Amino acid sequence: MASVQDISVSASINLLSALAFLLAFAFLRIQPFNDRVYFPKWYLKGIRASPRRSGPSVRKFVNLDFRTYIKFWNWMPAALRMPEPELIDHAGLDSAVYIRIYLLGLKIFVPIAILAFAILVPVNWTGKTLDDIKDLTYSDIDKLSISNVPSGSKRFWAHIVMAYVFTFWTCYVLYKEYKIISTKRLHFLASANRRPDQYTVLVRNVPPDPDESVSEHVEHFFCVNHPEHYLTHQIVYDANKLAKLVEKKKSLYNWYTYYQTRYERNLKNRPQTKTGFWGLWGKTVDAINYYSEEIEKTSEEEAAEREKVMSDPKSIMPAAFVSFKSRWGAAVCAQTQQTSNPTLWLTEWAPEPRDVYWDNLAIPFVELNVRRLLMTVALFFLTFFFMLPIAFVQSLASIDGIEKVLPFLKPLIEAKVIKSIIQGFLPGIALKIFLILLPTILMTMSKIEGFISLSYLDRKSASKYHLFLLVNVFFGSIITGAAFQQLHKFANQAPSEIPKTVGVAIPMKATFFITYIMVDGWAGIAAEILRLVPLIMFHLKNTFLVKTEQDREQAMDPGSINFSVSEPRIQLYFLLGLVYAPVTPILLPFIIIFFTFSFVVFRHQIINVYDQKYESGAKFWPDVHRRVIIGLIISQVLLMGSLSTRDAPKATPLILVLPVLTIWFHQICKGRFESAFVKFPLQDAMVKDTLERATEPKLNLKVYLQDAYVHPVFKGIEFERPPVIDEEENNPLVSTKRNSCRGSKTGSIGSPDSVVCITE
Amino acid sequence: MASVQDISVSASINLLSALAFLLAFAFLRIQPFNDRVYFPKWYLKGIRASPRRSGPSVRKFVNLDFRTYIKFWNWMPAALRMPEPELIDHAGLDSAVYIRIYLLGLKIFVPIAILAFAILVPVNWTGKTLDDIKDLTYSDIDKLSISNVPSGSKRFWAHIVMAYVFTFWTCYVLYKEYKIISTKRLHFLASANRRPDQYTVLVRNVPPDPDESVSEHVEHFFCVNHPEHYLTHQIVYDANKLAKLVEKKKSLYNWYTYYQTRYERNLKNRPQTKTGFWGLWGKTVDAINYYSEEIEKTSEEEAAEREKVMSDPKSIMPAAFVSFKSRWGAAVCAQTQQTSNPTLWLTEWAPEPRDVYWDNLAIPFVELNVRRLLMTVALFFLTFFFMLPIAFVQSLASIDGIEKVLPFLKPLIEAKVIKSIIQGFLPGIALKIFLILLPTILMTMSKIEGFISLSYLDRKSASKYHLFLLVNVFFGSIITGAAFQQLHKFANQAPSEIPKTVGVAIPMKATFFITYIMVDGWAGIAAEILRLVPLIMFHLKNTFLVKTEQDREQAMDPGSINFSVSEPRIQLYFLLGLVYAPVTPILLPFIIIFFTFSFVVFRHQIINVYDQKYESGAKFWPDVHRRVIIGLIISQVLLMGSLSTRDAPKATPLILVLPVLTIWFHQICKGRFESAFVKFPLQDAMVKDTLERATEPKLNLKVYLQDAYVHPVFKGIEFERPPVIDEEENNPLVSTKRNSCRGSKTGSIGSPDSVVCITE
Repeated sequence: MASVQDISVSASINLLSALAFLLAFAFLRIQPFNDRVYFPKWYLKGIRASPRRSGPSVRKFVNLDFRTYIKFWNWMPAALRMPEPELIDHAGLDSAVYIRIYLLGLKIFVPIAILAFAILVPVNWTGKTLDDIKDLTYSDIDKLSISNVPSGSKRFWAHIVMAYVFTFWTCYVLYKEYKIISTKRLHFLASANRRPDQYTVLVRNVPPDPDESVSEHVEHFFCVNHPEHYLTHQIVYDANKLAKLVEKKKSLYNWYTYYQTRYERNLKNRPQTKTGFWGLWGKTVDAINYYSEEIEKTSEEEAAEREKVMSDPKSIMPAAFVSFKSRWGAAVCAQTQQTSNPTLWLTEWAPEPRDVYWDNLAIPFVELNVRRLLMTVALFFLTFFFMLPIAFVQSLASIDGIEKVLPFLKPLIEAKVIKSIIQGFLPGIALKIFLILLPTILMTMSKIEGFISLSYLDRKSASKYHLFLLVNVFFGSIITGAAFQQLHKFANQAPSEIPKTVGVAIPMKATFFITYIMVDGWAGIAAEILRLVPLIMFHLKNTFLVKTEQDREQAMDPGSINFSVSEPRIQLYFLLGLVYAPVTPILLPFIIIFFTFSFVVFRHQIINVYDQKYESGAKFWPDVHRRVIIGLIISQVLLMGSLSTRDAPKATPLILVLPVLTIWFHQICKGRFESAFVKFPLQDAMVKDTLERATEPKLNLKVYLQDAYVHPVFKGIEFERPPVIDEEENNPLVSTKRNSCRGSKTGSIGSPDSVVCITE
Repeated sequence: MASVQDISVSASINLLSALAFLLAFAFLRIQPFNDRVYFPKWYLKGIRASPRRSGPSVRKFVNLDFRTYIKFWNWMPAALRMPEPELIDHAGLDSAVYIRIYLLGLKIFVPIAILAFAILVPVNWTGKTLDDIKDLTYSDIDKLSISNVPSGSKRFWAHIVMAYVFTFWTCYVLYKEYKIISTKRLHFLASANRRPDQYTVLVRNVPPDPDESVSEHVEHFFCVNHPEHYLTHQIVYDANKLAKLVEKKKSLYNWYTYYQTRYERNLKNRPQTKTGFWGLWGKTVDAINYYSEEIEKTSEEEAAEREKVMSDPKSIMPAAFVSFKSRWGAAVCAQTQQTSNPTLWLTEWAPEPRDVYWDNLAIPFVELNVRRLLMTVALFFLTFFFMLPIAFVQSLASIDGIEKVLPFLKPLIEAKVIKSIIQGFLPGIALKIFLILLPTILMTMSKIEGFISLSYLDRKSASKYHLFLLVNVFFGSIITGAAFQQLHKFANQAPSEIPKTVGVAIPMKATFFITYIMVDGWAGIAAEILRLVPLIMFHLKNTFLVKTEQDREQAMDPGSINFSVSEPRIQLYFLLGLVYAPVTPILLPFIIIFFTFSFVVFRHQIINVYDQKYESGAKFWPDVHRRVIIGLIISQVLLMGSLSTRDAPKATPLILVLPVLTIWFHQICKGRFESAFVKFPLQDAMVKDTLERATEPKLNLKVYLQDAYVHPVFKGIEFERPPVIDEEENNPLVSTKRNSCRGSKTGSIGSPDSVVCITE
């Protein structure tokens, strides 16, 4: 058991390391040569260009204006300054709502913490059970927890009442927030500009027809069944091979341009390359000729493949994007069943064009079911039994294991230094690698399950990750044992015993979780804002790989909110807060600091850094809501278990009411709000349609929608050769091809101190 | 443990009693004076009239044609003779599909029984464990069960393999049947004549509008949001009080007519009556005058109430039946969300006019949620704790209890005969009364939950009853203990222990369930066909109450399939069959006899007796399917528990695969078929619309739909005074007012032997 001193030491170490990250960030972000790392969003918006148009060369790389160093905290108020409507406009609703998750945490936990400190801490402190025990295993923190209250004491009434208060407060805040966000979403959808997905429905599982092509079949079907609304459709090609060729050609172009420029600068020295992998080995040839030949070859291949895809009926997938004359028509088609066989002609709202996950558009119904079954089983084994293969690898990675498999390494390994490194380092590394790979594994599983949009994939991966964290981090830390041991324990224990086992262990684990919050939460968030990996990667790429401006733009990795990973992590803090609020309230301030700090950091990031890949209109909120509810129910059940072991017999039925009410509350919220995230109401569609007919009576919608849902490879048939640069100074101002430059924002951006973007 | 002899005796007793019932039925049904009890359906169809138009008087009451007595089994082949399409036409799809549940039982269990007897019975019989034990607690039946196989034997492989085979066979049959029935449903809907509900959508939770009445608001809303499809609407009045007045007036008319006729026959004696309850006490008055005055009074009241309902805005409910110009328009409106607030303007397919449960049309969203929560909690307590109040009543109903409460009865009670009656009879009677009332209680709970159609109420009550039977009959019989004791046991036992506890007890309970099947199944079904209660009630009413032909028609109670009670009971047999198939296959023949017998009996009943109150188009099938799946999963889990106690360690993971596959199979079926029972596909709607436009271009739909969804009380404003009769012979042939007389069927009905309807 850690004492208060231990915690203070740990807290100060973590605070210091977080501070160090922040200082490093404050220093690095005002250096011009890092500008593309810390402000990529503004570059992508076309508002910001490469820094320092004039002045001495060194100032282009290092910031010598020492005044800016003094105000290094400025990014924080700056991040908070942008009002929410502008934020939605600037970064999209997804991002704006994402940071509201942190706000939700604050709204829930600040009042709960105040109440808990005002009522529960005194009640626990004066319980004085632990004073008598005089045991070294108890610390001052435990004196503030429920462990300090004697068994069977009437003081537990305070905890029961507070459990009710906390539940009602959490539900109240959740309800309000759900309402706000569904309103925001509807408002966002209503005020959105015309977008192709408003008129379009994705149709899958088009049945084969012996007499008609897919395209004809789709057209006839919708002409007959939606006669007054059908407008046009776009069939889906299986263009995976073509996409690869296009990618290859792009890369060849880059190399060609690079050598061409080098040659132009130094006409005497015609550049050469090797034909092998990455130009590292193989026959040495003239680089420019070689690449121009290669490009020609690939172009021919590409043209052939393009021809084949367009003409071969086999490469047409049984799916189509069907567009309607009005939003009303699309809303109707998306929400209704088309034929008596519900596995054919499946219709749903088309995702945004950039949100489509093209590979999954053509999976038949039964195969989809088989895939889902397999992935469910796989998720179960992954969650509960992932330790088994890792333990196997670890056993191999021990000294003995290596000596057995690779006996010739024996003399090397036996060296003392190396031996200790291997023993200390290797067993952990397999687990670390697995944990780093885990989100990718979960995303791959979601892809195999066959979801058709990136946003959906993210949400499904988040669900899987949440389960994993819940089982392996939360319960794993409390029960201490691998998940499959827990599973075995739970299967062989009475259902009424499980909350008791866990409930008893909970107050004892408070110090562990406080440390966890500081390491994973505080320092983790500080590392997030420092963007160490993108920083290093950018400079590495910039030094060794960037040949064209296009490359530099690719080297500039703005990243995006990784919803599938970060949201489940936030949920862990919700869970911890809710579980410990009635038991060990001392944990709450740490969580509140986490939420506050994260809120500021992520607000800064979405303003300056992240570039979202898609805009789903906060479709993830029902998931967030549901997972907080799950946390709430877990906290109630564990409190029940905890109290029932402390001789508070009336507590069990009293607290049992809470989960029932919570589940019921969830049902109400679901009924009241969820459809706003799933369906598009006809009234809203009709309003927008009417408005559009009045304002733009001559709109040619068919032309507008014609190419909206073309596979990305068909859009890039003609490549414009991008302007070539070698070094940044040759071409200081590159206007991006993105065109969403908004005049309204330049005021706050083009300030005199053009390096520090939003400050002052 | 009952021996084979005991079972044989019990079987013969039950077979004999079933036979007695059947003989009584065969005798009673060919008596002309029972004709309205055993063939009411034909009367209601208007095909059959009161029997024997001429001949000696006695032959009108007693059948003297002894040839018909010899062929008393004839009703069985007759019941099987009508082909299914004709049956659907005659009795509706609901009834035709209902008897297919029995057919499903036969399809599942006949092959399973053959396999089990061919493989499992020899394997068990030659196990010879019980031979060594020589214990009186084991019987020959146990030698045929899994108990006879020694622990850890390899013979258990046979049981595991058979569990797989049984599961796959059951799933295969279920899939085929689901397919057949969804096809039948779609065909039924497609071939159905024009019906108002095809064009109509029920809209609930119309929000209040300060400027407009509900009617205007509805009209404007749909004119705006479904401009090309909206046709008309019908608002819903709160007419409960009016309905009561109409009912009262009807009864007064009957009395008036009765006295009028009596007076006409005997002009000297003007009939008199008393003004009190049922004419039993109070002031003596002239009956005809009294009733004509009462009728006038009630008419005035009714007119005033009618006026009030029609004019008072408060009696208009915030709900409406909205009709569309085409089935397509209605299908679209029923399947889509109308406004951004999903708790307002709720649309769903309107039930058939006669299926509407008018009282529940105006419950707001939040109240609905509160009601459902309360009823869920109530159902939980009802299922698990119903024994508590009954035990309390039983304690009161004991000798001591009565003496305490009513001390003056002491001398009476102390008499020996009465004492023994009370002791033997009273404790059971509270439970009996509860069990008889249970379906009504469950139906009331469903009504409180706010479902809006009778068919939905039936389905929901069936779900509740199924839960009750599962917990209290199935698990209650196996674990022997009240449900709340089970609950306590389950809560304090490891999840892996529960299947073991139950699994071990299962083979021992085989004889109990065999007896149960014979008593509840065989004899119960035989009692069903005898219709003892309607028979007695009809003759009682006919003798004492029937005054008019209208009364006689009401006295003739055709009844209907009581889906909410009988379907859960069938499910119990499915469960027993599936659970015992791999354990004690000897139980299967008893179940097969039950299904065969029930099939014939119910086929006879739906042809000749039952008159369904509504036609839902077999909407209940997904429930039936789901409950068989639940039974299958329970059987798999119990087999797993049973085998794991018998040292068959590999069995657990092998059988664990089965529930996973079964749940997955259920998901597939749900995705593939369920929507056919929930939604109406647009293609089918369009086909019917197009056909209709082509065949009836001048159809005035508005007139057709105008009064379709008027509350029943508004339809019966003018009563035709029915022709008055005193005795049947005065008016031998009464054509009913129902008009669905089909010429195609008279051929088989009007056969020379006109008494026995379908025989020969």
